[in-house]
Amino acid sequence: MDLQIGLLGCGTVGGGVVELTRRRAEKIEAITGRRPVITHILVRDLAKQRPVALEHEQLTTRVADILEEPNIQVIIETIGGIEPAKSLILSALKAKKHVITANKDLIAVHGAEILETAEQNGVSVFFEAAVGGAIPLIRPLKESLTANAISDLKGIVNGTTNYILSKMTETGADFDDVLKEAQELGYAESDPSSDVDGLDAARKLTILATIGFHAKVRLDEVIVTGIRAVTAADVAYASEIGCVIKLLAAGSERDGVISLNVRPTLVPKAHPLAHVSDAYNALFVRGDAAGDLMFFGRGAGSLPTASAVVGDLIEVLRNIELGVSGNEPLIRLQKVVNSKLSEPLKHYLRLSVEDKPGVFAKIAGIFGDSDVSMETVLQKRVKQGGAEVVIVTHEVSPVQLESALLALQAEQSVQEIHSVMPVEVAGG
Amino acid sequence: MDLQIGLLGCGTVGGGVVELTRRRAEKIEAITGRRPVITHILVRDLAKQRPVALEHEQLTTRVADILEEPNIQVIIETIGGIEPAKSLILSALKAKKHVITANKDLIAVHGAEILETAEQNGVSVFFEAAVGGAIPLIRPLKESLTANAISDLKGIVNGTTNYILSKMTETGADFDDVLKEAQELGYAESDPSSDVDGLDAARKLTILATIGFHAKVRLDEVIVTGIRAVTAADVAYASEIGCVIKLLAAGSERDGVISLNVRPTLVPKAHPLAHVSDAYNALFVRGDAAGDLMFFGRGAGSLPTASAVVGDLIEVLRNIELGVSGNEPLIRLQKVVNSKLSEPLKHYLRLSVEDKPGVFAKIAGIFGDSDVSMETVLQKRVKQGGAEVVIVTHEVSPVQLESALLALQAEQSVQEIHSVMPVEVAGG
Repeated sequence: MDLQIGLLGCGTVGGGVVELTRRRAEKIEAITGRRPVITHILVRDLAKQRPVALEHEQLTTRVADILEEPNIQVIIETIGGIEPAKSLILSALKAKKHVITANKDLIAVHGAEILETAEQNGVSVFFEAAVGGAIPLIRPLKESLTANAISDLKGIVNGTTNYILSKMTETGADFDDVLKEAQELGYAESDPSSDVDGLDAARKLTILATIGFHAKVRLDEVIVTGIRAVTAADVAYASEIGCVIKLLAAGSERDGVISLNVRPTLVPKAHPLAHVSDAYNALFVRGDAAGDLMFFGRGAGSLPTASAVVGDLIEVLRNIELGVSGNEPLIRLQKVVNSKLSEPLKHYLRLSVEDKPGVFAKIAGIFGDSDVSMETVLQKRVKQGGAEVVIVTHEVSPVQLESALLALQAEQSVQEIHSVMPVEVAGG
Repeated sequence: MDLQIGLLGCGTVGGGVVELTRRRAEKIEAITGRRPVITHILVRDLAKQRPVALEHEQLTTRVADILEEPNIQVIIETIGGIEPAKSLILSALKAKKHVITANKDLIAVHGAEILETAEQNGVSVFFEAAVGGAIPLIRPLKESLTANAISDLKGIVNGTTNYILSKMTETGADFDDVLKEAQELGYAESDPSSDVDGLDAARKLTILATIGFHAKVRLDEVIVTGIRAVTAADVAYASEIGCVIKLLAAGSERDGVISLNVRPTLVPKAHPLAHVSDAYNALFVRGDAAGDLMFFGRGAGSLPTASAVVGDLIEVLRNIELGVSGNEPLIRLQKVVNSKLSEPLKHYLRLSVEDKPGVFAKIAGIFGDSDVSMETVLQKRVKQGGAEVVIVTHEVSPVQLESALLALQAEQSVQEIHSVMPVEVAGG
């Protein structure tokens, strides 16, 4: 029996969904009893070239053609962005249609409203493709790992920044040059801000933390630092102390307090996340029963994203066959979010200082006064009248670090604090 | 509302299930509407010390106390092995009780019979814990990745052998010494055969291949080579050519032909599986839409295994609440299994040869006659009258390799062929 589907948008992801749905129609019918058929596709411009050759799918610019078609039971949204995607999804849910979306921007900010609307209308909304592309993340967190209290979620969830940092590590080039190359190759947008300033990663962290910690967390509660300030020098020093620099989206829960940070982080080469390079994504999870887990795979792309969308589609078709909505109750426990209260971590600092006797003693004194002990100190690359000092501290609390940084800024012989980045623990 | 559970066995895994079910009872009730309570535990000896302090759970040696208790809707089996576990599970299913098991031995050999019995009785059987301990593998393969045609499943699925090979790599010690140490530390059984001879990995590969390839595969169709013959010399040579030796359980499908092999394999250090060390497990999956994925985590242990069992329990409770069995139709496509037809791979060979002029030309001639080209040749460690030669070939088919090995054996100047192992492709 055919099950009719309406697709919103027919760009890179939408084209992949059309292709993969066709390719797997027979198998999906064998599994679910229903043959998925995309009958209508909402587009803005009927004349535009599509990434996939259309067959029986009917293009339309009128959403009513889809929402008022009673035979369409499932809507797949691949437009992206907040509007018109949000209004379209809410209308679809109110029209009692199940919704599958890859829209991380929307779910990160309006996820609660969308899930509530689905619940009220007895239909489901799935969004596996919103985080980590092809990697099964949302469902394992929601289902397989539910028996765990999750203390840590650490992810490389943005392919563009991971590609840039990987290339900087491989070639020794500086950020600007690698970004330019990535833009020419189509790996980075002409306006790369959402990726390189960390907002995309913060959105994904918001979604993961909501599910993994069973908490209400807001995008604006994530402290975000992008990768623009990471220099070739930082990459080289990191390597010297056995680390690679990654943009980590890190959520932790300690005693009911959740901390959410996106920031460039030194990851020791022995850590499983250190080997996630180029356009790959990965999520590291620590549960009280499961211990340490990692999920790794392609975080973007037409077919990888479609893999997750069509995986959700199969789940929706099963639920339709079983006559259940498939929604799971939203367990939202009362928890505090305070991202400044992240746990003590080692930190990497790179400073320019005056190259004269006694300076180092002053710096050591400042760290001692803030009760910060140093693990590694490298003094290097003496320039005219100045030296560069790299310090790796032992674990410091955010308050201790703040205090040391303020004192360093006030110290005359410290010319500039170039970089301050946390250092991940080797074992995870 | 309470949901009563009968537990079969109270050893390491059973104790973990008791502890974790208690720890998460409240959360599970919030999610599923039912509070899980283990009321009865089947044991052989009532007086034996248990790994967990029992509270309200009632020990019994009579299975009828559990199977005839109408309030018990779910049975968790943690006894292991074929009998009596098989009879108990079949009886439980016929008594219309849902079954969760961590029993890889049983599912690998009698999985089809058990699934059919569950289907006939309108109840479900889940076994996430049977492969990869805490790592969600079965459900992602069955659900999230269903939209993919999977071509490759490559796993490190046995913690004991991975521990031994990791220690050999770290310390340079030989197999026998590391095995003895692992036995003293409790990481290897006093009879280590099931682990070190690869049978445990073959059982897990059988389960993964059945699900991933949607095929009927039998345990005896897996070609199995254990790790007893891996020497410190092999480990050192592997390192010299940028590889680590891992016991890989590898299943592939090419044009409808499935090949299943468990064997020590040289894994390039750039491959994600190379960094899976000690007691960790990992599964690498290649799908036509998703591309390359990897799942990583603890493959054994009391709470990690319980994490998977209780994850399954939550699924069963949800299904009970929804009034559905939760079984998925068994899609078993007609496919051929021929494990000798594995695809061409590079191979590592280590030979002892006579140390005299012309020997190397003869060896090169033999490879040439079998149409096998060589990528790397190391000639080393000359002993009295003999030399050791290490060869890495370019990709060879199993037939080509067989032909070259036969000719090498017939060649007088080749004293012994010590090792023949495939070399994994760097990218996966």
